[in-house]
Amino acid sequence: MGMTMTQKILAAHAGLDHVEAGQLIEAQLDLVLGNDITSPVAIKEMEKMKVDGVFDKDKIALVPDHFVPNKDIKSAEHCKCVREFARRNEITNYFEVGEMGIEHALLPEKGLTVAGDVVIGADSHTCTYGALGAFSTGVGSTDMAAGMATGKAWFKVPSAIRFNLIGKPGKWVSGKDVILHIIGKIGVDGALYKSMEFTGEGVANLSMDDRFTIANMAIEAGGKNGIFPVDDKAIAYMKEHSTKPYHIYEADADAVYDEEYTIDLSALRPTIAFPHLPENTKTIDEIQESVAIDQVVIGSCTNGRLDDLRIAAEVLEGRHVAKGIRCIVIPATQKIYMEAMEEGLLKTFIEAGAVVSTPTCGPCLGGYMGVLAEGERCVSTTNRNFVGRMGHVKSEVYLASPAVAAASAVAGQIACPEQLD
Amino acid sequence: MGMTMTQKILAAHAGLDHVEAGQLIEAQLDLVLGNDITSPVAIKEMEKMKVDGVFDKDKIALVPDHFVPNKDIKSAEHCKCVREFARRNEITNYFEVGEMGIEHALLPEKGLTVAGDVVIGADSHTCTYGALGAFSTGVGSTDMAAGMATGKAWFKVPSAIRFNLIGKPGKWVSGKDVILHIIGKIGVDGALYKSMEFTGEGVANLSMDDRFTIANMAIEAGGKNGIFPVDDKAIAYMKEHSTKPYHIYEADADAVYDEEYTIDLSALRPTIAFPHLPENTKTIDEIQESVAIDQVVIGSCTNGRLDDLRIAAEVLEGRHVAKGIRCIVIPATQKIYMEAMEEGLLKTFIEAGAVVSTPTCGPCLGGYMGVLAEGERCVSTTNRNFVGRMGHVKSEVYLASPAVAAASAVAGQIACPEQLD
Repeated sequence: MGMTMTQKILAAHAGLDHVEAGQLIEAQLDLVLGNDITSPVAIKEMEKMKVDGVFDKDKIALVPDHFVPNKDIKSAEHCKCVREFARRNEITNYFEVGEMGIEHALLPEKGLTVAGDVVIGADSHTCTYGALGAFSTGVGSTDMAAGMATGKAWFKVPSAIRFNLIGKPGKWVSGKDVILHIIGKIGVDGALYKSMEFTGEGVANLSMDDRFTIANMAIEAGGKNGIFPVDDKAIAYMKEHSTKPYHIYEADADAVYDEEYTIDLSALRPTIAFPHLPENTKTIDEIQESVAIDQVVIGSCTNGRLDDLRIAAEVLEGRHVAKGIRCIVIPATQKIYMEAMEEGLLKTFIEAGAVVSTPTCGPCLGGYMGVLAEGERCVSTTNRNFVGRMGHVKSEVYLASPAVAAASAVAGQIACPEQLD
Repeated sequence: MGMTMTQKILAAHAGLDHVEAGQLIEAQLDLVLGNDITSPVAIKEMEKMKVDGVFDKDKIALVPDHFVPNKDIKSAEHCKCVREFARRNEITNYFEVGEMGIEHALLPEKGLTVAGDVVIGADSHTCTYGALGAFSTGVGSTDMAAGMATGKAWFKVPSAIRFNLIGKPGKWVSGKDVILHIIGKIGVDGALYKSMEFTGEGVANLSMDDRFTIANMAIEAGGKNGIFPVDDKAIAYMKEHSTKPYHIYEADADAVYDEEYTIDLSALRPTIAFPHLPENTKTIDEIQESVAIDQVVIGSCTNGRLDDLRIAAEVLEGRHVAKGIRCIVIPATQKIYMEAMEEGLLKTFIEAGAVVSTPTCGPCLGGYMGVLAEGERCVSTTNRNFVGRMGHVKSEVYLASPAVAAASAVAGQIACPEQLD
């Protein structure tokens, strides 16, 4: 029986010729990731295990990004714990304020994740690196601790769902609409503990930033990972950002999938996930009554990359955020911030009446930089709209693309750019 | 007996020909200010008083700036309260996220405070507008409530200390060094309930941004207000920013002062206030042992203006923040942010490894955007270094100018630009 792309990577990292769904394996890790929320827990676990040192100081990435610059004393203490651990263990890839960014945007940009890697991270959205053809998945802090100590992790080999992408997305349709459409179709547990393998000629019509967005939200369908084939665009991205050797794995022709879907990208429309689940999707055309909003967030590990900011700026150029609406733009990394500034995007945002934040996860998880009061509604390019996710339990988050978020900021209600003017 | 400049303004606003120190008067208010911390308290006070409406919707300024974009649910609820009050009362000068900035930088920039005004604000540093020749002072939220309702406030007429400024400050000496020097000299209660009246030929050698910084910190010497004569620079500033009529008041030749000091600006050196009081000053030359730091904050109502950012950028240009140091730059308003971007200052900051925040008071009061952990030290251009002001009770804040702050970020310890390279 043939193997899926994910299974091929796992087999290689377990030193096995063949693995199959359900099999328990121990795989070598190419990278272990933690942030300012999860790393302190992992560091304490290592202390409990009385482990001295890490398996490889070059294969651990510590990225304080959730609550930095420190939002309170507690987060300051957490960051201090991570900083001191990094110094003590001479961790190469510790990223201080000013060097940093949102972990899942930062690691590919720094060339730390490439095709064929096995990456675990103590953060749900670690699945992002599947865009580059890596197997990457979120784990708990205890697994992160074990990973940092041993360089290995146990996995149950996942089965897979294949998404055959065809066609080319229309003007205001991006990766976010693709993944929201899919989650709307299969549900938030539709891919539970499975690989979401994206294939087909439509892949070539998706930018790398589109693919990062799609892989990033695999977890929102319950997926163990999301993964893309390694094509010329992916290779070009890696050549630009990384000196690390990469390995291309391809699914066997006779690989078995639990399910297969064909998604015609050209038929997709701007898609919005209504409260309080990412599966509660409607296309812009299906929204009957206007949805007045209070805030817009454009950023996050899902949609804070340069392409995302370019689209948002295209919508906001020459327009203004509606009276009473707070529009918060968060470039995902310092590099993206700089590029957006050089391209004039930040100027467009400020002129339009938005504010531009330091790179942070902040509002996505109700951390800071845009927490919602009771009854407030936000259109957000982030990845989760659970009850209370961005603040008060009676606030609401509508997940959307940067195009829809920017247009909504201008309209003061959920809108797509076509509906402006 | 002649009147001081402050007394002249108060007399005019009380409809009296003459007032003297210690007299209780009721003065007409030109502006009543509140922020996102103090306004909700004032609004609740008005509800208790069963007051419906405000005395003049054009003479109230509501500026959410401390914890916006909302840092948590509580601050979100506070901002919502202010927003709804502003809508209900059609307050002209309510500043939403994206239009806003730190109140004491924003109001002069928006032309809302001019020479001869009487301004009260529910924030200690309301004394800032004395730079323009206004009488302005911080009050409690209850006084703010009464002010919003009636347009009047009771004052005990202050006596005054005169600071006769002579000479011209040297290259790396700015307004911050002037006021820190003065507070070091007279102490944090040295001007308790008194006007600090700055005069002399040295005033002409201070930029408007220098004067804002100096007046801003009058409260740190206990002053009721700080005030500058209205010269050509002040008039030019008002003409550029405001259409509001201004009134120039001058102290009588026979005005009586409790004390007089002559300050030779040319003799001043970069000055740092050590923990935990603004009066604990040392010049850079008096620091014997190196003081290693963890963080630098460049911003606040004291030092987040364009001149401040220009100086910081001049120091950081072609240099890099020391390894392990977090350098947080906070333009005080959206306009300053934009100007700093257009001038290339933000680029310099990012290239140097600093982060650039949305306009906010955040770190100054341990709110967010740079809160300190136990044992951490910060060189900050803010105005207070009390125990626990920026975070943990065992953290330390060293107050300094933008030049010293930027140089310290590069050196990783307290330094002035002369000491670099």
